[in-house]
Amino acid sequence: MRIPRPLENLINSFRRLPGIGPKTAQRLAFYLLHFPQEELEDFANHLKNLKVETTLCSICKNVDDSDPCSICKNAGRDKNKILVTASPMDVYALEKVGYDGTYHVLHGVINPLDNVGPEELFIKDLIDRLRDMINNGYSGIELILATNTSMEGESTAMYISKQIREKEGFTEDEVKITRIARGLPVGGDIEYADDITLTRALEGRVDF
Amino acid sequence: MRIPRPLENLINSFRRLPGIGPKTAQRLAFYLLHFPQEELEDFANHLKNLKVETTLCSICKNVDDSDPCSICKNAGRDKNKILVTASPMDVYALEKVGYDGTYHVLHGVINPLDNVGPEELFIKDLIDRLRDMINNGYSGIELILATNTSMEGESTAMYISKQIREKEGFTEDEVKITRIARGLPVGGDIEYADDITLTRALEGRVDF
Repeated sequence: MRIPRPLENLINSFRRLPGIGPKTAQRLAFYLLHFPQEELEDFANHLKNLKVETTLCSICKNVDDSDPCSICKNAGRDKNKILVTASPMDVYALEKVGYDGTYHVLHGVINPLDNVGPEELFIKDLIDRLRDMINNGYSGIELILATNTSMEGESTAMYISKQIREKEGFTEDEVKITRIARGLPVGGDIEYADDITLTRALEGRVDF
Repeated sequence: MRIPRPLENLINSFRRLPGIGPKTAQRLAFYLLHFPQEELEDFANHLKNLKVETTLCSICKNVDDSDPCSICKNAGRDKNKILVTASPMDVYALEKVGYDGTYHVLHGVINPLDNVGPEELFIKDLIDRLRDMINNGYSGIELILATNTSMEGESTAMYISKQIREKEGFTEDEVKITRIARGLPVGGDIEYADDITLTRALEGRVDF
């Protein structure tokens, strides 16, 4: 016996989501049979409107319902600090810890295995943004590279840094480049830290 | 900074699903931002149509796109065997192993902690179905109780059995009641089996 077409369709939609396998997709679809029709329609409308009602901020490429986004519009933000992240979700994590500058969202990291090169990311936009700022009299801009500390995150950070120094030739005075600290997570054990993390933690030691 | 409303709405819809917590819901919603609009609309339509385009079979209460369902309509099925399950997903599991009778889907089990009593399930419909069959000359019907072997599943099976024997007074000749075997799963270790399973496996031993 085959699963009825409407259920099958929904199961296939769920399966396209990350971390949802065939069994989970089936369980979710059957679970939704017990939802009132009204709630199913709300859910459907939220899906349909997701991209229609949001936009990318033309300055920082973050997802928001207005352009420029609420952070770029905010006069209280330190416009001289630009934090570069891979995804909009990172922005919400950083907002929670009280970061007060602006962002630049790349929407991915360089990953040759997934066919993601620098052109697929908003790196050119970042450089244009920096050039515009410098032309408008900004100086001492701090660019905080906050991509993940994975291999792809590190090479993306490296690539951006090289572009800015070597290709574009922005000086230290114009754009200062920093990288988020790599070391032991708070509560971490030296005994169990991996070699690379421990090396980084030693290299990055600070005055106490 | 708040998450934009359209994203927040979708996150809340995902959070209503079983096994999806706040972090996963967020990850799914952000992931969908990279879907083409067309696919989002397909997903939305599948949700909207889920209940509109499916129906409960008036005989066995299984979910299908036609009434009676494809199993109840199938002349090749042994109508004298009725297998009672808690959910439509169980039906698909049993279909895979080649069960050739019909089903009766309860849509839940008796669970006082969740306020699910016998009236909330399709137990009355099962009894009416059996009475109709007997009135129409059927005899030797086998009712296979295949609810889960959890506490709730066992008490639901017990309740149905009591209703049929004591309240309705159907005889052994009219309706024979069986319960799926409880014992060691295939590949199981006697050493690691829990006490109740082992007791059941001993009680249920068969000629070899």
